[in-house]
Amino acid sequence: MTRRLSPWRTLARRELFRTPRMIVFTERVELPDGRIVEDYDQVEMASFAIILAQTETGAVVCERQYKHGLRQVSLTLPGGQIETGEEPLAAARRELLEETGYACVSLTAIGSFRTHANHGGATVYYFHGQGARQVQAPNSGDLEEMIIETLPPAGLLEAIRQGEFMVVADLAAVLMALLKTTGLKGADHA
Amino acid sequence: MTRRLSPWRTLARRELFRTPRMIVFTERVELPDGRIVEDYDQVEMASFAIILAQTETGAVVCERQYKHGLRQVSLTLPGGQIETGEEPLAAARRELLEETGYACVSLTAIGSFRTHANHGGATVYYFHGQGARQVQAPNSGDLEEMIIETLPPAGLLEAIRQGEFMVVADLAAVLMALLKTTGLKGADHA
Repeated sequence: MTRRLSPWRTLARRELFRTPRMIVFTERVELPDGRIVEDYDQVEMASFAIILAQTETGAVVCERQYKHGLRQVSLTLPGGQIETGEEPLAAARRELLEETGYACVSLTAIGSFRTHANHGGATVYYFHGQGARQVQAPNSGDLEEMIIETLPPAGLLEAIRQGEFMVVADLAAVLMALLKTTGLKGADHA
Repeated sequence: MTRRLSPWRTLARRELFRTPRMIVFTERVELPDGRIVEDYDQVEMASFAIILAQTETGAVVCERQYKHGLRQVSLTLPGGQIETGEEPLAAARRELLEETGYACVSLTAIGSFRTHANHGGATVYYFHGQGARQVQAPNSGDLEEMIIETLPPAGLLEAIRQGEFMVVADLAAVLMALLKTTGLKGADHA
């Protein structure tokens, strides 16, 4: 890097609106060149965990369900909201078990990211599970009815290619798992 | 699929709050089993386009900038909000040119997705550009100061592995471009 990129300075913050699931607020910010932006809107949603869990044969534990934010049925990866005071890893283990009945021999953090670069949104924590095995019946307590499907890696990628996964956070989880677990080097890629 | 997954029915919708950049509303919904949920919150943000543009040598046009939603400097892909009445493809071409000064010989849609499965969020449209060439100086008009960097594919994936890309929508764009442009089959992956 030849130039230095400076952060913005937050001069004031004002909450605009709150529901049990999100806080909308606006900030007065100062840019590095001295300009002032009076109302830079932000929305903060609950953090969540997403788990790419593989069985001993490498199959990935997926869910097919209607999601109201999509107005459609989609394939998704297991995951859910991190409770107040809960560690992301514990949330990942709990959500996987509740939603699918699966537990993993190992569960490894593979990165955390934000859903919206400008507005903020939520922080999502990704985990890669290995040795996944169904140890109990699913009992998510979620509003959604869901079908558990295990897909071999090639089938997972084909389903993505066909547009059956409709949420960006799931796709990003797959990329992170690919990068963390394989020799994917990009010589011929991207 | 052995079972049929039914969509929820929206019985009523009430706007709670609106800024120039987002609408928060709540819905009364009926689940397939007849249960009623009185307040299912939704947030609708502006649609945006993200472009993975490659030069003739395969290098990917990236931006390094401070993003206030992250409170950090991050590598990102070019992209931005789709204006009212604008086609996603036109928005992609415009944003790439404004932010980076690059134009592509070809620009192809590689899928559209939602940022939040439950809350809705925004719809993001992905594009893959080939033959990218800088034809003018960047002039984004954005609040952010940015540094344009072109990364070879291997360097792009290494930067992702190192956590230099912090926004899920960018990571998902990379996965979609990988799937659409290469023989990535997943035999040893995910």
